[in-house]
Amino acid sequence: MSLIVQKYGGTSVGDIDRIQAVAERVIATRNAGHSVVVVLSAIGGETDRLLSLAYDIDPKAAGRELDVLLSTGEQVTIALLSMALEAKGSLAQSFTGAQITIHTDNSHNKARIMKIDAERVNAALEAGRIPVIAGFQGIDEDGNITTLGRGGTDTTAVAMAAALKADECHIYTDVDGVYTADPRIVEKARRIERIAYEEMLEMASLGSKVLQIRSVEFASKYNISLRVLSSFVEGPGTLITAEDESMEEVLIAGIAHNRDEAKLTIRGVPDTPGMASKILGPIAEANIEVDMIIQNIGDDDSTSFTFTVHRNDYDKAKSILELTSKDLNAGGVEGDDNIAKISVVGVGMRSHAGIASQMFAALAEEGINIQMISTSEIKISVVVDDKYLELGVRALHSAFGLDQGDN
Amino acid sequence: MSLIVQKYGGTSVGDIDRIQAVAERVIATRNAGHSVVVVLSAIGGETDRLLSLAYDIDPKAAGRELDVLLSTGEQVTIALLSMALEAKGSLAQSFTGAQITIHTDNSHNKARIMKIDAERVNAALEAGRIPVIAGFQGIDEDGNITTLGRGGTDTTAVAMAAALKADECHIYTDVDGVYTADPRIVEKARRIERIAYEEMLEMASLGSKVLQIRSVEFASKYNISLRVLSSFVEGPGTLITAEDESMEEVLIAGIAHNRDEAKLTIRGVPDTPGMASKILGPIAEANIEVDMIIQNIGDDDSTSFTFTVHRNDYDKAKSILELTSKDLNAGGVEGDDNIAKISVVGVGMRSHAGIASQMFAALAEEGINIQMISTSEIKISVVVDDKYLELGVRALHSAFGLDQGDN
Repeated sequence: MSLIVQKYGGTSVGDIDRIQAVAERVIATRNAGHSVVVVLSAIGGETDRLLSLAYDIDPKAAGRELDVLLSTGEQVTIALLSMALEAKGSLAQSFTGAQITIHTDNSHNKARIMKIDAERVNAALEAGRIPVIAGFQGIDEDGNITTLGRGGTDTTAVAMAAALKADECHIYTDVDGVYTADPRIVEKARRIERIAYEEMLEMASLGSKVLQIRSVEFASKYNISLRVLSSFVEGPGTLITAEDESMEEVLIAGIAHNRDEAKLTIRGVPDTPGMASKILGPIAEANIEVDMIIQNIGDDDSTSFTFTVHRNDYDKAKSILELTSKDLNAGGVEGDDNIAKISVVGVGMRSHAGIASQMFAALAEEGINIQMISTSEIKISVVVDDKYLELGVRALHSAFGLDQGDN
Repeated sequence: MSLIVQKYGGTSVGDIDRIQAVAERVIATRNAGHSVVVVLSAIGGETDRLLSLAYDIDPKAAGRELDVLLSTGEQVTIALLSMALEAKGSLAQSFTGAQITIHTDNSHNKARIMKIDAERVNAALEAGRIPVIAGFQGIDEDGNITTLGRGGTDTTAVAMAAALKADECHIYTDVDGVYTADPRIVEKARRIERIAYEEMLEMASLGSKVLQIRSVEFASKYNISLRVLSSFVEGPGTLITAEDESMEEVLIAGIAHNRDEAKLTIRGVPDTPGMASKILGPIAEANIEVDMIIQNIGDDDSTSFTFTVHRNDYDKAKSILELTSKDLNAGGVEGDDNIAKISVVGVGMRSHAGIASQMFAALAEEGINIQMISTSEIKISVVVDDKYLELGVRALHSAFGLDQGDN
C-alpha cells in the first residue's frame, strides 16, 4: 500500500460530471489498496471570472484582497468533490490552505510555501477519510490569505507530497504525458516514459507547458516522483524523477520550442569592462526579464551585444536600449520580433560530444540559418527565423531518432 | 463620533455598480465623522447558484462540506468591497469568519454564534482601516467552517455590534423601513419610526420579512439599537430598540399577516388527561412545527382539537392525524389550507383593555367570520378564510388609526 497525492487541474474539475468522474477515479485508487490525498484547482475558467470581477472594480487590482477573492475558487471545488465522494459512500474532508495549515511568505499573488503542517491531513487519513485540499493558497504568519500565482496548485500538490512523505505525486491534466516535442508540430512525437527533473525543467521553461517549473524544482529538491497523467484517458503517463544510469543512454529527451521571444542588438559598443551591466541595468530596472545573452567581438575596438526578451516587452526594451545607445555613443539598435527558439534537451548529452554539431548539421540541411546559440550542460538552444520553427523542430526530432517507430 | 456597524444584503451588493455605491456610502459615513465596520452578504443569487451546484452533486447535500462551499459567497463580496474602498483611497481590510474569529457551535448549516474575538477588528479600526466582514459564517472549535443559515448575515452584524460595543447597527436592505402593514396590501401603510424589539419579533415571525428573527433576539439580548434602511433611497428608516414610555402611547404598532399556514381539526376526542400530547406527539416526531393550538369543550365527554401547521406540511400532518384518530377512536379529521392569519401587534395593548373587542368588531363589520383566535401579551391573532386576507388587513389598519394622514 502506498500513499499517493493526486492533483486535478481546472479542466479535470471543469463541470459537475467531471467532478463526479474525479470522485470515481479517487475511489478506484483507494479500492486498489492505496491511500489517497487529493489537491484541486478551481473549476476551469473560474479564476478568470473572479479576476474580471476584480478588474471591473479596480483595473489595478492586486495584493491582499485579490488573494481573498481568488482563493474562493479552490474552496468551491474541494467542497464539491468532498460531497461527491461522500455521496458515493466514501468519507472525505476538505481543507483550505488556512485549515491545513500551509504557511507561506507574505508576497500576495505570488507567495512561496514556507512550511506545511501535515497533522490534520494525517489525522484525516488515519480516520479513514480522503483529504481534499485546496491548491494555490496558504496563509502568511499574520493569518492573511495568500495565493501562489498561476499554476500554484501543482506546487501545492508536490509540497503536500513532500510533507506527507508520499510515494508518488500524480498530476492529472488534459494531456496524457510529456512528449518528445509538441504533437501539434511533430506528428511523430512520442510520449516520454521517464524524464529527469533537470530535463523537465528545461522542457517546461522552453515551452512544453505541462507542469509549473516551480513544482518540478520542489519535487527535485525533496526527491518526489511526479507522474503526469490524463484525467480523460487511461495510461501510465510520464514519470518525472531523479536521473538514473539508464537515462544517460538516452542522448536527447526531447525538442522544445518557444515563440514568445524577441531579440535586440546594440552595435558599436566600446569594448571596455562594465559595458554589459550598463546595457542590461536599465532593462532590469524596468522589470524586463532577459533570456539569452550573446556578445560578439567586432572589428576595431567595438563589440555588438544581443539579447532576447519576451515579445510583450519588446517595444519597451527597444526604447530603453535606444536611450542607452545614445548615452554610450554606440552605433545604434536593431531588433527582430519574428524569431523562434528551438532547443534539444537531454541529460545524456553531458557525456557525449558532437550533439551540437549534429544539431547544426540537421538545421543546415534544411537551409535554416542560425541567428544565436546558447548552451548549458543539458541543452543547446538556437534562435532562428520564426518561419522555420516547425521545419526545424521536425528536422531535429528526426535527426535525434525521436520519431515514433524509430526504436 | 460614534461606531456604526453597517450590514448590506445580497441586493445591495448585487453587482459591481452597487458594490461601488456601497463603498461610497461607507466612505460618506466615515467622512461624517463616524467609525464604520461593514458586514456583507453574498452577491444576490450567489448562494442559490452555489446550492444548485451542490444539489447537482448530491440532492441531499448538507453538513460540513456545504458550509465550505456556501461560505465562499461572502468571501467574494468582502474582497470586492475592500478593493473598491481602496481604489477610492480608503484603507480597508477584509475578514472571513475564521479570521476574526467568529466562534460558533458545530451545527453545520444552522450554527449559532458562541463568542466573537473583536481584537483584530479593533486593531484594524485603530490603524485607520475599514473592517469588511463576511456575514453568515464562523468556525467551530475544531476549526471547521460553519454557516448560520439563511439571513444569518443580520445575526453576524448584530453580534459584531455587540462585541464591538457599537452605538448602532444599520441593516441596509431593499425596503426603506418596517411598515405598519404590507404596503402591497395596504396602500396607506406607514413607515414606522420606532418599534420595540418584542413588537418587531412578532411582526417578523408573523410575516413582515425584513429582518431575521434571530438577529432581533440577539439585538434585544445585548440592547443593540438596530436601524433598517434602504440601500437605494435616503431616509431615516426604522429604529428597532428597547421599549420606552413613549411607545406605550401607541396602542398598535402594525398589522401583520401570514398566508403560509393550514389548519387541522380532530373531532370527538375523549376528554381525558394526556390527549393533547397523544395528538401532537406524532406530529412533532415528524419534525412538523405547530403554530396556533385551540381546544374546544364539546358536547358529552368529547372535545375537538384544532391546530395550524405550515402549508407545506399540510398533507403529511393530515395523514399522521388520521392514523391518530383511528388509534384514539376519535370522530375523524377535518382540514383546511385556504386560511390566513391576521395579527395586531403592539406593546401598548398590555395596559389597555378593549383591543380584542375593537378588532373583532372591525372584522364583523366587513362580514369576516373568525375561525380561530390566539392571544399573547402584545399581539392578537385571528385565522380567517384566505379570501378575506386583504380586506381584513385593510379594515384593521383603518380601525386602529394607522392609515397615512390619520395622525
